[in-house]
Amino acid sequence: MATQSGSMRVHLIGSGLIGTSLGLALRRLGWPVTLEDASPTSAALARDLGAGDLGDAAATDAPAPDVVVVATPPDVAASVIASSLERFPEATVTDVASVKGAVLRDLAAACVDTGRYVGAHPMAGREKSGAIAARADLFEGRAWVVCPHPGAPDDRVAQVRALGAATGAAVVDLPADEHDAAVAAVSHVPQIAASVVAARLEGLPETAVGLAGQGLRDVTRIAASDPQLWTQILAGNAPAVGRVLDDLIADLQRVRDSLGSLAAERDSQPVAAQGARGTLARMIADGNAGQARIPGKHGAAPTQYAVVSVLVPDTPGQLGRLLQDMGEAGVNLEEIHLDHGLGMPYGVADISVVPAAEIPLQEALAARGWRLHS
Amino acid sequence: MATQSGSMRVHLIGSGLIGTSLGLALRRLGWPVTLEDASPTSAALARDLGAGDLGDAAATDAPAPDVVVVATPPDVAASVIASSLERFPEATVTDVASVKGAVLRDLAAACVDTGRYVGAHPMAGREKSGAIAARADLFEGRAWVVCPHPGAPDDRVAQVRALGAATGAAVVDLPADEHDAAVAAVSHVPQIAASVVAARLEGLPETAVGLAGQGLRDVTRIAASDPQLWTQILAGNAPAVGRVLDDLIADLQRVRDSLGSLAAERDSQPVAAQGARGTLARMIADGNAGQARIPGKHGAAPTQYAVVSVLVPDTPGQLGRLLQDMGEAGVNLEEIHLDHGLGMPYGVADISVVPAAEIPLQEALAARGWRLHS
Repeated sequence: MATQSGSMRVHLIGSGLIGTSLGLALRRLGWPVTLEDASPTSAALARDLGAGDLGDAAATDAPAPDVVVVATPPDVAASVIASSLERFPEATVTDVASVKGAVLRDLAAACVDTGRYVGAHPMAGREKSGAIAARADLFEGRAWVVCPHPGAPDDRVAQVRALGAATGAAVVDLPADEHDAAVAAVSHVPQIAASVVAARLEGLPETAVGLAGQGLRDVTRIAASDPQLWTQILAGNAPAVGRVLDDLIADLQRVRDSLGSLAAERDSQPVAAQGARGTLARMIADGNAGQARIPGKHGAAPTQYAVVSVLVPDTPGQLGRLLQDMGEAGVNLEEIHLDHGLGMPYGVADISVVPAAEIPLQEALAARGWRLHS
Repeated sequence: MATQSGSMRVHLIGSGLIGTSLGLALRRLGWPVTLEDASPTSAALARDLGAGDLGDAAATDAPAPDVVVVATPPDVAASVIASSLERFPEATVTDVASVKGAVLRDLAAACVDTGRYVGAHPMAGREKSGAIAARADLFEGRAWVVCPHPGAPDDRVAQVRALGAATGAAVVDLPADEHDAAVAAVSHVPQIAASVVAARLEGLPETAVGLAGQGLRDVTRIAASDPQLWTQILAGNAPAVGRVLDDLIADLQRVRDSLGSLAAERDSQPVAAQGARGTLARMIADGNAGQARIPGKHGAAPTQYAVVSVLVPDTPGQLGRLLQDMGEAGVNLEEIHLDHGLGMPYGVADISVVPAAEIPLQEALAARGWRLHS
């Protein structure tokens, strides 16, 4: 089936953020990629960005694709999968919808033979959408969940796994219902929480919003997401999201009741606020425990890097000099974050390095005249 | 009162993250700073880090401080403020507790003359606590809210404002009750939301947690916060937090009901799911609107920087070379973030620049052989 060693002929249906990024990633490897989209303009944009070729992949004289990827909005995924299975009678058909059980149910309800279909979900995205936001490296180090239904042939599953692996993603097998329960907790409910926290800011006075710090910015970053896409995702995973949301609301209600007792206690009303502080402390401690389970970037175990902070004068070339000095000292950085103070003549560079490199780096930088932060 | 032009003699009570950071910031300016802490070990550590001198600031032969800063945990702030007003009969006394109304109420309940007290709240913090996490630049560009109670003398208020400004913070005046309502929405409820979202991960299978992406990491970053400190903060601001939480729970309950209708609709039960999708879309859209109001870093208006992404080989010195090239091109960066792919031989540097510099930077880097990301 492969067109050359390891490569597959891929046809992409849908040239939004995910489809176009996938095309860019595969074209980078030299795989033959064809594109289509309900909007010819979108398809042409994806082509111009280098995500693949246009043309009718289902035409009789066109080479048959090995894999068809349905990268449409989730609410039409099942019907496009069904039509793709008809249009491409030899191809393996996969999709990228963020909810997997609903797709299988819709296909079963339409009596579609799913023998050549293997669902998948690349866990990658951005707040921005559309081909223009696409990146060839969007999937690198992210999970690419493959959800074979019972009876999916091994060779079809292997092709979908190979597709995910080709993008640099870490391929994970998971049954559809386990996938849906997992994303309800790690993606869909966090989205809801971010949105309802951000919604509280709508009616706030300007001065109050001005007190926002990095914590609020982090909690609400994904609140900038697309309402239409998220309505489809949440509706598609309604039962699993509902279950997680029930637990979350119950926790919040306990916290709210505790705050009520504490407020009454303060007003010297004869209310037993016993246990109220315990409830609050347990809520934060449970959050500590859950947060500690989150793996680091790229699915790696959460590595604790040492951070060396350096004052960097705010003139061109200074950060370059800093990193040149780091390079000469033989220290490889894991991550660097530069932050400018408001109206300050310098920024602070937080340099993450493996713990063993912390002290050598501090010494090397101090010896070269850099001012380190305590 | 000032010991030299513009500087004030400051006595810090409490050498945790905030107290020690304040000491470092003021010592950097050459202001005379003395320290005390209920724990002599903590005070000695803060001294060793350069946050100020030890010694009995209340001793008869010691120079009287101009300003006493109470930087204790919030639940003892009021009593330490009261004792400080007695111990330092000339000084202006301020504090850094994150809830201001409760402190004033506790002082009033204890019949303390608050004539020399002016409350404040620097909106700065980290997930890490203690003197060891302190930074001289912790307050730079952050809000330093000053909450003068009615009747606070202008000269005392001016001193507390000058103290905040000296750290590089942006000083904001706000009555205590407005402050408490604002921080309930921009800080306290976001903390609760982050904690209860993170708590959902506690019982999840390992594979499910492994699907976590950057969105979840951002939403839950502050869930790593200290349970004891946060219990005090939430208990201290119980009425205001409770009000915001009521609205948030009502939103979530509406979302939950919509998900229930959608799940029932899918199971072909005769339930009117009309409006359910509208509720979900409105929830996300309201989040969009709220999120858009959040100012950028350092309290500046939310600047939209252009981001240029560059592939950087994962060997020492390469990032240095990149930034040297940027410097030579005369482009000043606002922020840089380097991210390594898992097992990839390169990283991706996202370089934020003012929009006008985007195209010149892209051209300059391409001309110097750098591979840009689409």
